[in-house]
Amino acid sequence: MTEAVPLAEIYRGKFLESLHLGHAVVSRADGEIVEAWGDPDLVVLPRSSIKMMQALPLLETGAGSDLSTERLALACASHSGERRHVEKVGRWLADLGLDEHALCCGPQVSRNPELRDQMIRSGEPVTRLFNNCSGKHAGFLTVARHIGAGLDYVDPENPVQKQVREAFEDMCGEDSPGFGIDGCSAPNFAASLKGIAIAMARFAVAGHGSGARDTAAARLRDAMIEHPELVAGRGRACAQLMQAAKGRAAIKTGAEGFYTAILPELGLGVALKVADGATRASELAIAAILVRLGVLDPKDPIVASFLHRPILNWDGLKTGFERPAEGLLPA
Amino acid sequence: MTEAVPLAEIYRGKFLESLHLGHAVVSRADGEIVEAWGDPDLVVLPRSSIKMMQALPLLETGAGSDLSTERLALACASHSGERRHVEKVGRWLADLGLDEHALCCGPQVSRNPELRDQMIRSGEPVTRLFNNCSGKHAGFLTVARHIGAGLDYVDPENPVQKQVREAFEDMCGEDSPGFGIDGCSAPNFAASLKGIAIAMARFAVAGHGSGARDTAAARLRDAMIEHPELVAGRGRACAQLMQAAKGRAAIKTGAEGFYTAILPELGLGVALKVADGATRASELAIAAILVRLGVLDPKDPIVASFLHRPILNWDGLKTGFERPAEGLLPA
Repeated sequence: MTEAVPLAEIYRGKFLESLHLGHAVVSRADGEIVEAWGDPDLVVLPRSSIKMMQALPLLETGAGSDLSTERLALACASHSGERRHVEKVGRWLADLGLDEHALCCGPQVSRNPELRDQMIRSGEPVTRLFNNCSGKHAGFLTVARHIGAGLDYVDPENPVQKQVREAFEDMCGEDSPGFGIDGCSAPNFAASLKGIAIAMARFAVAGHGSGARDTAAARLRDAMIEHPELVAGRGRACAQLMQAAKGRAAIKTGAEGFYTAILPELGLGVALKVADGATRASELAIAAILVRLGVLDPKDPIVASFLHRPILNWDGLKTGFERPAEGLLPA
Repeated sequence: MTEAVPLAEIYRGKFLESLHLGHAVVSRADGEIVEAWGDPDLVVLPRSSIKMMQALPLLETGAGSDLSTERLALACASHSGERRHVEKVGRWLADLGLDEHALCCGPQVSRNPELRDQMIRSGEPVTRLFNNCSGKHAGFLTVARHIGAGLDYVDPENPVQKQVREAFEDMCGEDSPGFGIDGCSAPNFAASLKGIAIAMARFAVAGHGSGARDTAAARLRDAMIEHPELVAGRGRACAQLMQAAKGRAAIKTGAEGFYTAILPELGLGVALKVADGATRASELAIAAILVRLGVLDPKDPIVASFLHRPILNWDGLKTGFERPAEGLLPA
């Protein structure tokens, strides 16, 4: 097994205080690896970074054919639980004749600090709609209703999850060695890191082939690119990087240091795993790789903020900075 | 340089999802390394894990001779900002004729979730007293007053910090290569990992020698052991592990994955750094090493919870677990 390599560095004063290692792959849709760091064969749980794959049955079955691009983006989202996210998912469930009690994901406090504090002050209850995965689950429910499956849609034996697994394995081009249960209680299928990158490359070139899967992949990708702040939220790394990419990338975070990117112009896919699971590192690493590939402009102030991120202490003093490892940046 | 070795593993289902590497040293006071993992010569910023060293001048100068063991524990603390912590530090400052405005650490929200939410609801302002380092800073102010130094006590050129540096270098048995500015704005001096472990071992054997430094080290160590919940807070790892050690260890966390332990009965010191800076890993690793050394009983339910820590998702389902790496546990 190839060892993990440096992906991000944490400096305090002149000292390299902490170091994040990991693995990354850039692939074409035909499986050709363009570039790799660490071990492309590493078996990974991609977590939320592959929600666009979990949403494929939503379109392939015809269940979501009439859905707006906003709802398709929410089906692929790890949203921040802002008002707009919660309201849009709530209306989607209402259109299905359901409410938040149909969601199998647990309640999660809003990631928006102002809204979180406002809800604490007013005593407003945190519902399952606030869970970052509520859009994905609304998508699962839409499929379950359409194909007549039970509403226990997170059961790995439920037809919804069987379709998710089939789509996932087909896109990755490999059999999954199994699954873990995700933060939202849905199964999260494992694959090799390069399998995930290949799947992302297939999303990148989708829309020029034929078949329901190809069409579905293109619509989901385009919906993500159209609505960065529905896929994540205001100020979140996914949203900021997609906005900076100006339509040239769909970018998605996953828990435990995962990131994916779909690059339609280049026909490439990227998958990245920080070995220790740190999000602070995966954000910097994906930004660096997209700069390296020419998708992000390092002179854009937002992009630059991912290449040198100040660390401020409780009194607002700059005590250090975080940066992607040199090996990820353009030579 | 010796490579970092596995310290903690994160499992989801049957998959090893994330892995934390790092370095650890167990040393005697004479500098003999009893056991080491990774690189004992790694230069580290020990952060809050060496607050007992930063507190040495408080007793050596005579400034704090009459202080209660509670205040000595708070001088060594990264407290949770519970009411008791804030009130005790506030009274200490009042006894100096000062108030929170004399503290150079910034305001920090209480780590106690109930109190934090209660303060949001009531609109109670977050003051500098809530900063986890406020007790350390009260100690610095006590020294500054006593020796007639300026109250800009976090300036590395202030006599208070010069005394801290001298004590730190003497205890570690090496010159410090410099400092970083800590989260509380005070300088945090660098040393080798083995230097920190040696210093902890010197705290372990203190009280049987002579001189102000030896006496000071013994008093600070004993104050930490007497007041685990002032050094940390209710439910915090430091406090839980000290309580489980039943007087046999003073244990202290530091930011970015650091941990130290002082083991008086064994005359040993421990220093540990998770390379990626993760606290979830440092807590498990220090627990495992203290089990290995016979200081903690693995059958104690609290200790056992550090050897197999369930991961629960938003709906309360167990989705995986965290555990220390096998190489740290008893053979």
